[in-house]
Amino acid sequence: SSIASSDSEFISYMKNKAKSINKALDNSIPLCNNFVPLWEPVLEVHKAMRYTLLPGGKRVRPMLCLVACELVGGQESTAMPAACAVEMIHAASLILDDLPCMDDDSLRRGKPTNHKVFGEKTSILASNALRSLAVKQTLASTSLGVTSERVLRAVQEMARAVGTEGLVAGQAADLAGERMSFKNEDDELRYLELMHVHKTAVLVEAAAVVGAIMGGGSDEEIERLKSYARCVGLMFQVMDDVLDETKSSEELGKTAGKDLITGKLTYPKVMGVDNAREYAKRLNREAQEHLQGFDSDKVVPLLSLADYIVKRQN
Amino acid sequence: SSIASSDSEFISYMKNKAKSINKALDNSIPLCNNFVPLWEPVLEVHKAMRYTLLPGGKRVRPMLCLVACELVGGQESTAMPAACAVEMIHAASLILDDLPCMDDDSLRRGKPTNHKVFGEKTSILASNALRSLAVKQTLASTSLGVTSERVLRAVQEMARAVGTEGLVAGQAADLAGERMSFKNEDDELRYLELMHVHKTAVLVEAAAVVGAIMGGGSDEEIERLKSYARCVGLMFQVMDDVLDETKSSEELGKTAGKDLITGKLTYPKVMGVDNAREYAKRLNREAQEHLQGFDSDKVVPLLSLADYIVKRQN
Repeated sequence: SSIASSDSEFISYMKNKAKSINKALDNSIPLCNNFVPLWEPVLEVHKAMRYTLLPGGKRVRPMLCLVACELVGGQESTAMPAACAVEMIHAASLILDDLPCMDDDSLRRGKPTNHKVFGEKTSILASNALRSLAVKQTLASTSLGVTSERVLRAVQEMARAVGTEGLVAGQAADLAGERMSFKNEDDELRYLELMHVHKTAVLVEAAAVVGAIMGGGSDEEIERLKSYARCVGLMFQVMDDVLDETKSSEELGKTAGKDLITGKLTYPKVMGVDNAREYAKRLNREAQEHLQGFDSDKVVPLLSLADYIVKRQN
Repeated sequence: SSIASSDSEFISYMKNKAKSINKALDNSIPLCNNFVPLWEPVLEVHKAMRYTLLPGGKRVRPMLCLVACELVGGQESTAMPAACAVEMIHAASLILDDLPCMDDDSLRRGKPTNHKVFGEKTSILASNALRSLAVKQTLASTSLGVTSERVLRAVQEMARAVGTEGLVAGQAADLAGERMSFKNEDDELRYLELMHVHKTAVLVEAAAVVGAIMGGGSDEEIERLKSYARCVGLMFQVMDDVLDETKSSEELGKTAGKDLITGKLTYPKVMGVDNAREYAKRLNREAQEHLQGFDSDKVVPLLSLADYIVKRQN
């Protein structure tokens, strides 16, 4: 059965999805091309793009995109270009985040960060190229029978997710947060929540929304998946904060304990580790509630995905 | 008359166009908003976006976009969002180009570069936000009566212009060029040409193409405008190289003579200043030839624009 009903079934379901996603991502950035002028310099950028895009990562965003598409009655293949696009946008932002002038990180998914391998200039080009390719991929969905109106709406969602209504706002809030003072814990928590919604949840939301758009979902279905994804995205970030404080760099595959050192606002810092874990569990319950009304068999992967995120150890 | 037939008429025509463009750009990035969460951090990014986007620049790209739209029978206002989008993409790339890890420039249009004023982190966010806003602006053209098909095609052109088929390829070639050796002058010239076509001409092309798409142009009209714009874009870069070598920083409003110091490949370096000027003039003639077949009154601004670029002093 393609539907996951137990933990182990879900893991294998997720691995299968990740396999299709990885294959599509691999094909999207060739290492060989005889028709591109300036191929040699471009090849170096392609290598840098592939380095961060393949093969690591849990593929949570593209998987969510594919599952959302299927949930509303679409084919997995219809949402594949958009799913890849969302992962490209994510990879592009990771490359920039790790730069010396940003978070100055040297380790990501257990490997040296992009600029450590390719140099800052090529990393910045790779990040730009990934975002541009994301748009091109999504536009190519018209060749899979998706209407221009729906493709346009999908591109709009993605642009929203990476701009000042999404990622940029979250990162700007992150920068500003280090020098901000708050009147009370409630204010601090509200700020933290908005920051994480923008830094993480908005792109997770976009993944689900874009999948549902490609699959031909109704406005109501899209809205419900969006609410689910917002909870999941926020929960993902809460758990990220918890893991950063409680796990080693080795376990995480990236520099651990960094939030504490840099004095960043995090959930454990504002509410304590235990309360943060409780909050993640509450978000999980909320996420699951938003899925009521969908076919109870078909939502199983999304329920399992939320469970998986709240239980994850790295 | 709105059509420019002499040098001075063209200058005032261009100033008028720049005025409408500047107004639209100004409106596109507000300094006041009561409905955006995280407004304070976002405001800082908006300021950085505006700093590079307004008010400097010759507005060659957006102007070309508007004129192309009108030439094929469209209204200026129909292409205005796309014209702004092209200028945003241009500004976004200028911000990144000037970063310490890229060209490390401290002066641009007579002012300190973006990161000198806002810091590298905010500059990078501003650059990303400008590119995302460019997509949003272009998509909004549907509200002006442009079909979804045409809007998608326009977004595709823009994505192509900034990715590995455009800007990124040109910049990667620029990076690689510093360490490349060539068998002969012909090879060197071919490489230089491809580099500049990608670094500059492809976005100038996109400006014209997108304008013609928005204006409802036929495929043939779009192709002719594209060929014209490629010549103009390349000519623009040839003159940029010439000016960098022959003018002072004060005259240019940016660091002059930098290409020589950094050992960059330039037209004056490969063919000498005089030959480079001659080449620019030849490109001007070619550009004008591509406009044959259009209404001879309506092409006057494009002919004047090409003349203006080949004669410009900064």
